[in-house]
Amino acid sequence: MTGQRPPGGRRLTREARAEALIGVGLKLFGERPLDAVSTREICEAAGISRPLLQHYFGSKRGLFLAVLGRAVERLEQTARPAPGDAPFQTLVPLLTTYFTFVRQHPAGALLASRPGSGMDAEIQAIVQPFRQGTYELVAQALGHDRVDDSVALAVWGWVGLNETTGLHLLERPEISEAKAAQYAALSLFSLIGAALRVRGQPMPADWQRFAEALAEGLPRPP
Amino acid sequence: MTGQRPPGGRRLTREARAEALIGVGLKLFGERPLDAVSTREICEAAGISRPLLQHYFGSKRGLFLAVLGRAVERLEQTARPAPGDAPFQTLVPLLTTYFTFVRQHPAGALLASRPGSGMDAEIQAIVQPFRQGTYELVAQALGHDRVDDSVALAVWGWVGLNETTGLHLLERPEISEAKAAQYAALSLFSLIGAALRVRGQPMPADWQRFAEALAEGLPRPP
Repeated sequence: MTGQRPPGGRRLTREARAEALIGVGLKLFGERPLDAVSTREICEAAGISRPLLQHYFGSKRGLFLAVLGRAVERLEQTARPAPGDAPFQTLVPLLTTYFTFVRQHPAGALLASRPGSGMDAEIQAIVQPFRQGTYELVAQALGHDRVDDSVALAVWGWVGLNETTGLHLLERPEISEAKAAQYAALSLFSLIGAALRVRGQPMPADWQRFAEALAEGLPRPP
Repeated sequence: MTGQRPPGGRRLTREARAEALIGVGLKLFGERPLDAVSTREICEAAGISRPLLQHYFGSKRGLFLAVLGRAVERLEQTARPAPGDAPFQTLVPLLTTYFTFVRQHPAGALLASRPGSGMDAEIQAIVQPFRQGTYELVAQALGHDRVDDSVALAVWGWVGLNETTGLHLLERPEISEAKAAQYAALSLFSLIGAALRVRGQPMPADWQRFAEALAEGLPRPP
């Protein structure tokens, strides 16, 4: 991540330089809040001049938004099930990845997951589609025709729960990402069960079986 | 809420005028985001001059922060159990009040509960203690000595879940506040159950009984 010329003496392309800047931003903004990272520090770490940063991203905040967008993109790529995956097969591994990511980027997680920012429309525009995407992923795995109002309420609540759980994990290093992921996956079905019970409906047998398997800690529930 | 002299011709006291402004702010900021409410509109609704608003709250944002603080204060007062209340007796009524409040102040709820604002330290400073207070209230009802790491994880997640559930209710007018509250109360125990199962621990019998009663929809579970 420096501005030096690569072997062969060619200068970095515009794209490569922007990428390098985003990489520097991921590291710095992942560890410290926006205000605690100076423009000079970014430029020095990336080996570029301040006007070049302005040229690429407009401002420090512009870079920050690009970095947040990239972080969300990375998470979304990880969360995309591979073709042939059975529904929920990837739930625990994906949640483990999510909690690991949160721990690796504490400042970013605090920013993106703390409540309080209907204020910031630009951040909303990045974070909100990620929440929506998470919801869709789970709704698809459950089967869209089985997601009625009650189940939807449970899944939306679960999305919020995972963010808060992630923040809580930052203060509890003794809880492993794997345990937190097992809990989060199991909690999805517990919440669906609660929502259905309020409506007086039983839990479908296949969901129940999956939850039982999760509770028993099988690495790959049926 | 006007600036006219009350009967008797005395002018409003400083405190009464600030109160009137907060009342106007609760209404306007409850319905629309900060940016969509103009300073002129506030002054007209409160019947005061712009310099007077500046004198009391510094700026529109200053009034907004006072309004958010007041909203949180009101919620906290509602959430305080009366002396003699059995633990959890007030859980469903309190959650009903919370969801009703969210529906009455949609813009405020969107602001306070949406993720994305580690950015805004002043809003954090108001919203974060409310989350902490909610956690404490539940931990106290559960019994502090029974709140180990697993149960704490579940309660913290539940705090986030309620905020997301509240936002979801804004889009689903067909779900009543009472049903949502019953679901939210039941989900607390479901989540605790999930957290304990991950640890291989059974659910304590009294919590289990309470959850069963909730599921059956008793207005005042034991």
